[in-house]
Amino acid sequence: MGIEGLLYPRSAALIGASPKEGKLGNVLFKNMASFPGRFYPVNPKYGEIGGVRCYPSVSALPEVPDMAVVIIPADPALRVIEECGRVGIKNVVVITAGFKESGPEGAMRERRLVEIAERYGINVLGPNCFGLISTEAGLNATFAVRGALPGNIAFLSQSGAFCTSVLDWAWKEKLGFSHFVSLGNKAVLNEAHFLRPFAEDPDTKVIVAYLEGISDGGAFIRIAREVVKTTPIVILKAGRTEAGARAVSSHTGTLAGSDAAYEAAFRKCGVIRARNVEELFDYAYALAKQPAPKGRRVGVMTNAGGAGVMASDAVEEHGLELARFSEDTAVELGKFLPPAANIYNPVDVLGDAHLDRYKKALDLVIDDPNVDMVVSLSAPAPLISFAELARAVAEAMRRSGKPITVSFMAGELGEEAEEVLREAGIPSYFDPSRAVRALAVLRRYAEIKGKVWEEPRDLAADRERVREIFARALAAGKAQLGVEALDVLAAYGIPVPPGGLARTPEEAEGIAERIGDPVVLKLVSPDLVHKTEVGGVVLGVPAREAGRRAEEMLTRASAHFPRARIEGVLVQRQMPPGQELILGSTRDPQFGPLVMVGFGGIFVEVLRDVAFGIAPLSPGEAREMVASMRGYAILRGVRGRPGVDVEGVVAALERVSHLVHDFPEIVELDVNPLLAYPDGVVAVDLRITLSKGER
Amino acid sequence: MGIEGLLYPRSAALIGASPKEGKLGNVLFKNMASFPGRFYPVNPKYGEIGGVRCYPSVSALPEVPDMAVVIIPADPALRVIEECGRVGIKNVVVITAGFKESGPEGAMRERRLVEIAERYGINVLGPNCFGLISTEAGLNATFAVRGALPGNIAFLSQSGAFCTSVLDWAWKEKLGFSHFVSLGNKAVLNEAHFLRPFAEDPDTKVIVAYLEGISDGGAFIRIAREVVKTTPIVILKAGRTEAGARAVSSHTGTLAGSDAAYEAAFRKCGVIRARNVEELFDYAYALAKQPAPKGRRVGVMTNAGGAGVMASDAVEEHGLELARFSEDTAVELGKFLPPAANIYNPVDVLGDAHLDRYKKALDLVIDDPNVDMVVSLSAPAPLISFAELARAVAEAMRRSGKPITVSFMAGELGEEAEEVLREAGIPSYFDPSRAVRALAVLRRYAEIKGKVWEEPRDLAADRERVREIFARALAAGKAQLGVEALDVLAAYGIPVPPGGLARTPEEAEGIAERIGDPVVLKLVSPDLVHKTEVGGVVLGVPAREAGRRAEEMLTRASAHFPRARIEGVLVQRQMPPGQELILGSTRDPQFGPLVMVGFGGIFVEVLRDVAFGIAPLSPGEAREMVASMRGYAILRGVRGRPGVDVEGVVAALERVSHLVHDFPEIVELDVNPLLAYPDGVVAVDLRITLSKGER
Repeated sequence: MGIEGLLYPRSAALIGASPKEGKLGNVLFKNMASFPGRFYPVNPKYGEIGGVRCYPSVSALPEVPDMAVVIIPADPALRVIEECGRVGIKNVVVITAGFKESGPEGAMRERRLVEIAERYGINVLGPNCFGLISTEAGLNATFAVRGALPGNIAFLSQSGAFCTSVLDWAWKEKLGFSHFVSLGNKAVLNEAHFLRPFAEDPDTKVIVAYLEGISDGGAFIRIAREVVKTTPIVILKAGRTEAGARAVSSHTGTLAGSDAAYEAAFRKCGVIRARNVEELFDYAYALAKQPAPKGRRVGVMTNAGGAGVMASDAVEEHGLELARFSEDTAVELGKFLPPAANIYNPVDVLGDAHLDRYKKALDLVIDDPNVDMVVSLSAPAPLISFAELARAVAEAMRRSGKPITVSFMAGELGEEAEEVLREAGIPSYFDPSRAVRALAVLRRYAEIKGKVWEEPRDLAADRERVREIFARALAAGKAQLGVEALDVLAAYGIPVPPGGLARTPEEAEGIAERIGDPVVLKLVSPDLVHKTEVGGVVLGVPAREAGRRAEEMLTRASAHFPRARIEGVLVQRQMPPGQELILGSTRDPQFGPLVMVGFGGIFVEVLRDVAFGIAPLSPGEAREMVASMRGYAILRGVRGRPGVDVEGVVAALERVSHLVHDFPEIVELDVNPLLAYPDGVVAVDLRITLSKGER
Repeated sequence: MGIEGLLYPRSAALIGASPKEGKLGNVLFKNMASFPGRFYPVNPKYGEIGGVRCYPSVSALPEVPDMAVVIIPADPALRVIEECGRVGIKNVVVITAGFKESGPEGAMRERRLVEIAERYGINVLGPNCFGLISTEAGLNATFAVRGALPGNIAFLSQSGAFCTSVLDWAWKEKLGFSHFVSLGNKAVLNEAHFLRPFAEDPDTKVIVAYLEGISDGGAFIRIAREVVKTTPIVILKAGRTEAGARAVSSHTGTLAGSDAAYEAAFRKCGVIRARNVEELFDYAYALAKQPAPKGRRVGVMTNAGGAGVMASDAVEEHGLELARFSEDTAVELGKFLPPAANIYNPVDVLGDAHLDRYKKALDLVIDDPNVDMVVSLSAPAPLISFAELARAVAEAMRRSGKPITVSFMAGELGEEAEEVLREAGIPSYFDPSRAVRALAVLRRYAEIKGKVWEEPRDLAADRERVREIFARALAAGKAQLGVEALDVLAAYGIPVPPGGLARTPEEAEGIAERIGDPVVLKLVSPDLVHKTEVGGVVLGVPAREAGRRAEEMLTRASAHFPRARIEGVLVQRQMPPGQELILGSTRDPQFGPLVMVGFGGIFVEVLRDVAFGIAPLSPGEAREMVASMRGYAILRGVRGRPGVDVEGVVAALERVSHLVHDFPEIVELDVNPLLAYPDGVVAVDLRITLSKGER
């Protein structure tokens, strides 16, 4: 059921309310006392607190409140939450600590909490959280001394301390929030549960989250994909690097997914990733306040050359482009700007400009059809006050409907202007590059918003055949499959070389003669993984020698490795040299099967030219992954070198992604190499690791 | 002569002083009136200004002042500057505009200014500049209403507007400067002239510059290399990207060097590059205030898990590492920290910590011999005031002598702490990643400071031979040399395949028989550049067929290209396949010959795996360039693939760098490919473009 009662309660109980100064129950009481809805303090010790009637238990309340906040110690808290369930309270915020974060005993408590929540269908926020604020409902159910200013940012945080930090800082910055939610241990409610309600909230323009992990990767991706169509999501996922990830596990016990998985997941659902706190809130503010640009062309307005140069650098660095004005604009600018001014982008009206000159130029620039957005720069100048310039900028934005950000490079001289710009919702920074970065995130979201999110295809595949192969392997105690299992790929429509498994030299010769010269012989043994190193691979064998060479191989193998299980020799047509690629898959704890495509051989080893995605992939996603490799042009063909069948590579990647998605027992998979030719691709070798337990 | 008189004047004249409110001459007068040295306003119209005696001309002054500031219009300014020269004033600041920046007439004026300066040996700052401030001398010779706070940062700017911006902003941030210099048009004095005087100034701890170009690349590199041994240099070089560079040329007319050249130049002399204004001043502040760390190991102190995770992410991102504490530290921390705390790095003393707990842990961490520097984090916590924590941090820094930066994640709650930290010179930011970045720049400078700057070797080379080849080519009207000029490389000790130029089929056969099978034939014609496309390259020719095949080639060429000059056929031993590399050089307007090494073939085309350096290279510099390529491991050998003679590659690069340095007439040079083998390298093909005019 929904969490509207949590985000927009009309009635709320506080379990553990206290009249004693300095106690948490008192801080919460004072914060919740200003709630405009019906407020019920609960504490058997008091009949009233601060003039508000206090109830001995939730059962004694005159109504079933929309939500309850729990701050009593963990063990009694569990009993009271059960009572909440019995009386029908559907939303409970558990601020109380002493659960999973505190050791094995706490973890047991948390399991009981989850049981209770499931039994009664309670939406539990927390435990071990900082609470939540809904400025729309007028509720501050946190122990923050001050709540939050109203605003358009919905904020989620997995760190309670970060909540207190952000709140204190936001007051200073005058940053407002629609909702402010501390997720705590995420025993029941996690980040995914809040996305849709936030997107449906007309007051929320952007969703911002600090996360150390994502609880339910599949649900998150599914929901986020829908949500970003209307509301941008910006996430600071901490524990990004190896060092950071170590800190995560010691902090919240979250099993952080590998960063490649998060990157791939966020890309798959259009989440914008912030690398640090500054980016998180710069992005949030711009997205909350500014319209979406129609393209990537930036008009740069300045009265100081240096600022224009810095902004131009940033335009290119952030993947935007300097607008080329229509001819009219340059002509019009030329009519009134002094000769030393620059009438091309960046437009420099010079330091001696008065307001009219800057404003007239700004209006021409922002109205130019080739300009999608504007960054307005100014150094302190004798004839312009920053405040009046700020008003002109705000007016230009309102009139044009185009995004605009500002860098007024000043200190105290710019303070009044800061107020004007804040009022107008215009991002403003001392550093021109930061103002441009804010434009870049607007463009990025515009692209996400406009994206058609393709679903994976319904792929025909001989799943029964794969099931058989895996069942046979597991029945024989084999968790490692090798080249002999290429049929698994064939069953998914991925081309493999003609060939077959020969149990005897005679069979080998028969197969070789059927498929034709030359062939490759590969020893098949679950116990001998590194085939090449034990002489288990012979190349370039003429068909008529296949029997003899297979016999030699088998004899040598059983002589050297008497205890190894030898299943036979795979006879395969030898493929001509092609572009070596690798397809792979590994299983991510949060997001499930993560697939990879990369250049094979030394490319993969040294240059790590690989791309990751979350399975199953749509054809478009597979294509984007392939195209994102640095060496993509090599696949397309460069300098007279012919390209390869890129669509064949894309299809093979897509099909592998379906395979690993359909069969969760595939723990790891490597197709190495996949050979790509101008007219097709062939998977030549394979390794699969199966989990023994699953299915 | 030195510029001490400019930076530390004991007497100063202001030419163009005015009593009229609102005039520039009045603003300057007021600013300079507080100069503690002897101050001489000059203006024939006034006998005194504001009670200060005013002189009719510089000739009438009672002494020759150490410096003069000129603010009268450009044409009279030239006359007065000449007068300054005659009376012996050695330092003149020309604030006056109307020079190079204003068109052809101004450019002519600027040339006259330079002539005067040279004739009289005057150090001219500007023209078209904002002036300069020396807080040490108590001089504000700018038109800024407020000067600068005293401090340890020496600031240079090529943009006058940026000067006004930074001054205003610095007041708000309470950032102080030792010197503050606006370079203007850099007609005489440029950035390089200020580096050594700043480094010799005991009050200057860091040199910071905003530049759009560097006037004298060679001098800059030479001086900066010396200076960074004692004083860090941080530069924001704007016009970095293509878009930005376009804005530069329209702004100051600076011919901006390519960014690769600036990157290479700054690396060559240990200049730290800031990418934007925020980095520029973050770096400046840290370097001005904090000691150098001994290593790259960071101790992270926090009372909030999330902040610790973010800082750990940043540690890795910025190339630092999380310290592993000595065993003692963990044991000692374990003695008093609660069980839920983290005693390993990052140390989390938990949100309920009082000051003693945080301080005790901080002291243990910063004293750990495995900790080179510390970042101290805190979210708002009930039992610690930020201000008292700030004092503890400042004390730990003073006691330990190790660098420390802070992220107190708060707003108003942290304001008093900000004051304490500023007082102590401790960088402090809301964003933990920014605090870590400040540590990273300290480490970076420590490495630069500790670096042994190797000089280029005195290389034996047959320069006479190269001179001959070039002279002969130019005499024949050839500016393009090809494979026939491989002797140029051989003269510098770079191995080339055996072979020679055959003018006739018979000669071709003779050469082929001498060097042995198989050979390659390459048509030599200054008019046919793309040899392969006109059938001008034949591979794998047996020696006995060399004559016939050469004849075919010559006949075909003269038939198809009757007007092309055909010089003959180069007969070369065909080299076996090896790792293809490319060596190249181009001439940068600021820094001269820029050399390049990269992977050949599709690597260079697609992956741009190349490195740049400024010639001549020392062996160490050449080695660093080679090692900086992404694919370097391929040269060293990976996965059983043998490596190549890396030292041979390094030597070839070093030698090419000497060649292009010794012969400035080489405009461009490509050795493509240089084939690298396990036991050596061979330059197989060459293109050189000579400038016809030079030498």
